Amino acid sequence: MIRGMPDLLKRLAMIAGAENVIPGDSPAAADFAHDETLNGPARQPVAIIKPETPDQVTELMALATAAGVPVTARGSGSGLSGAAVPPAGGIVVSFERMNKIVEIDETNHVAVVQPGVTLQELEQKTAEHGLVYPVYPGEMSATIGGNIATNAGGMQAVRYGVTRENVLGLQVVLATGEIIRSGGAIVKSSTGYDLTQLIIGSEGTLALVTEATLRLRTRLPVRATLLAPFNDLDTVTRAVPEILAAGLQPTMLEYVDQLSMAAIIFNTGLELGIPDNVRDAAQAFLIVRLEQRDAERCDADAIDAGLLLERLGAIDVYVLPGEAANSLIQARENAFWSAKKAGAADIIDIVVPRGAMPKFMAAARAIGSEHESIVVGSGHAGDGNVHLAVFQTDEKVLSHVMNELFAAGKRLGGVVSAEHGVGRTKKPYYLELEDPVKIALMRRIKEAFDPAGILNPGAVFDVAESPSPLAAEAAL
Amino acid sequence: MIRGMPDLLKRLAMIAGAENVIPGDSPAAADFAHDETLNGPARQPVAIIKPETPDQVTELMALATAAGVPVTARGSGSGLSGAAVPPAGGIVVSFERMNKIVEIDETNHVAVVQPGVTLQELEQKTAEHGLVYPVYPGEMSATIGGNIATNAGGMQAVRYGVTRENVLGLQVVLATGEIIRSGGAIVKSSTGYDLTQLIIGSEGTLALVTEATLRLRTRLPVRATLLAPFNDLDTVTRAVPEILAAGLQPTMLEYVDQLSMAAIIFNTGLELGIPDNVRDAAQAFLIVRLEQRDAERCDADAIDAGLLLERLGAIDVYVLPGEAANSLIQARENAFWSAKKAGAADIIDIVVPRGAMPKFMAAARAIGSEHESIVVGSGHAGDGNVHLAVFQTDEKVLSHVMNELFAAGKRLGGVVSAEHGVGRTKKPYYLELEDPVKIALMRRIKEAFDPAGILNPGAVFDVAESPSPLAAEAAL
Repeated sequence: MIRGMPDLLKRLAMIAGAENVIPGDSPAAADFAHDETLNGPARQPVAIIKPETPDQVTELMALATAAGVPVTARGSGSGLSGAAVPPAGGIVVSFERMNKIVEIDETNHVAVVQPGVTLQELEQKTAEHGLVYPVYPGEMSATIGGNIATNAGGMQAVRYGVTRENVLGLQVVLATGEIIRSGGAIVKSSTGYDLTQLIIGSEGTLALVTEATLRLRTRLPVRATLLAPFNDLDTVTRAVPEILAAGLQPTMLEYVDQLSMAAIIFNTGLELGIPDNVRDAAQAFLIVRLEQRDAERCDADAIDAGLLLERLGAIDVYVLPGEAANSLIQARENAFWSAKKAGAADIIDIVVPRGAMPKFMAAARAIGSEHESIVVGSGHAGDGNVHLAVFQTDEKVLSHVMNELFAAGKRLGGVVSAEHGVGRTKKPYYLELEDPVKIALMRRIKEAFDPAGILNPGAVFDVAESPSPLAAEAAL
Repeated sequence: MIRGMPDLLKRLAMIAGAENVIPGDSPAAADFAHDETLNGPARQPVAIIKPETPDQVTELMALATAAGVPVTARGSGSGLSGAAVPPAGGIVVSFERMNKIVEIDETNHVAVVQPGVTLQELEQKTAEHGLVYPVYPGEMSATIGGNIATNAGGMQAVRYGVTRENVLGLQVVLATGEIIRSGGAIVKSSTGYDLTQLIIGSEGTLALVTEATLRLRTRLPVRATLLAPFNDLDTVTRAVPEILAAGLQPTMLEYVDQLSMAAIIFNTGLELGIPDNVRDAAQAFLIVRLEQRDAERCDADAIDAGLLLERLGAIDVYVLPGEAANSLIQARENAFWSAKKAGAADIIDIVVPRGAMPKFMAAARAIGSEHESIVVGSGHAGDGNVHLAVFQTDEKVLSHVMNELFAAGKRLGGVVSAEHGVGRTKKPYYLELEDPVKIALMRRIKEAFDPAGILNPGAVFDVAESPSPLAAEAAL
């Protein structure tokens, strides 16, 4: 039990220094009340603490467990499911000061980083070494800690996998304040349970990450980007498995539907350099990016990919010059902001088996039209990962549309979220669709890590929104 | 509590049919008392049951939990750490009858298989579809269930990852008899804890796998295999990071030391086709296998790799003709059997950061010579995964050597087992070296899955060797 706010603040200040603690009632605390979730939840924490060392996180967690105070981790606040929004009476721990790139290890191809390092910082640093951390969710201000919490994916997952496949080890602080290391600069292990993998994607409910060992790849020097307009979206989604089967190993395989492309062009002033009549006829676009270790192979791959795209029904194929290609990728990254600007009420990032995409898109169209809602989007076609924006001003109708979209995805073998996480906003849909036996098992796992229930209560599957009764027994 | 053997056998027969239950005291039960662990443990189970359906496994687990009878899962019994050996009073559940390839899905590049399917069967079936399941631990009689239990790795992990990276979903039966599905034919998810990843590598202590969804890849049509003899092992291990950095994406990057190569040649009659004087001078060999989608690129890659190997200190480089290459790979696969035949007392499959291999190999040499033991081997150089055979007839000295080898690996950032698992034989070393906080956490996770402690007691970190007292409270 918290004896009272001033006491808690004093204790936090003793841990990280008064200058690194923001009282929840100060104006500066407002920024920590929300993430970037569309029409998402907002709640001011009782305090924000900015630790600088793993030891400070350890002290914080010991205090929080003893006091029964909820703790919610926060990276740069770019999340899209409200997982960084604290429950009532909770502290936010912001990792912005734990932002050191500890090591770029060229021999083992790993980076050792603190959780507050942004993707942008890591991109710059790895480039200096001819290496790359290939997880590319698009938002370069996002932190590694946030990426690990949500198992972030993005455009290059089709070749390099998601966060899960690119994190080799973690240092984490448990709810009890104990600190452990799992994995490391090793690429395989059959030595005990894989705690690294369990913590990745757990949205701050199991432990706080204080350091991560990331797998880096050789940065391939040559790229080609192809843009292929298609007469309809089904032809696009049906083309995807064949492109992957050809062994071209694209680093990106993205689709954008007509309305989303129009919004992107309108918002960014992007020049695609393709005739207006082709653009107007196109109901969907496929973006294929290739990477190779020399220009000759890259050109050959681009020609093979182009011929394949034409055979698979593309109206035409454009190999984009470097700058136009980068602008297009950048604009595709910003699809979320375009949707937000256009007034989207909610977004989904469902994933289905990629072969089920035509069926899922047909279902989405039917659901949208039945409820007189606009459902448009773009997505990581190579992964079966569909990003849809739903336009509907009536909240009740919106909720029907969302429910039906998730249910349609589930029926096709999909899950609620591919990369944004369940957080708080997708929790009702997740709890509705998930097997209760699995939910019960996850709750038992959660208890094995966090018996007092102080780590991000209310997130993912937790209906409590506050620590367990266990915690209330303890006192400061 | 078991009321008595006849009663248990009757109950098992009601589940799977009398013809699929072997009493522990019958001669046929002897085969189920051990795996292939060198000088490993052996213990006859009280009964062996061979279920045919997930429902039968469900019934079995409900019975076992109620009766407090330990259950140990078994694939083809090719394990190397005693994880398939039952504890006293335990049942063995053999998955040999659950051996169906349910589906090869060309659109989603997945295979849905039962746990008793062997790698050999999967290899044949996927080849018919132009696809491949790339996990290649070498022993083709091993089952997918066993591979999942130990997170099997092998020679192609350097390019395609280990089992963990190639299993997308599981159907498992929990200790309570509940059946759940995790993941599926989807390549990414941020929707609840990743139960798939937690169960992979848990050596039968968390749940019984009754079906797996595996990720398949395009089977590349062209291969080249290079053999490079080196004057010393250090030069080999130092060459490895540079080969990987070159972006050639080798599918195999294996080293074999002189004594191991001699044993392999002696046992298999392998013809390397290289001059005797070069072979005799070589202290170590590097095998590099490349794969490409056309012959021209493969040839170009082979030339690049050859030039690179020469620059990195190879005495010479031989591009092996197809048949010789396959024989060499086959012989390398059989290194374990060669070591066994030569009288090795124990083997290790430690993994260290690949850059630490020269240091680890130096430490291993020093440990061997200090204790007058022969320590030789081969391994997955690209993964920092060292397979060593230790020759020492004195058990006490052997135990010192093993302890020191594991401790040396740990000091360099490594772990006890890369791919064989901890099982029963590596447990003492693991418990000695692992952080007790992590062991305690894993035990709590184990309890969240298996409160009665009936799943493979005595394995990995479990010192009990029998079910928890909880189980004893229940009765048939």
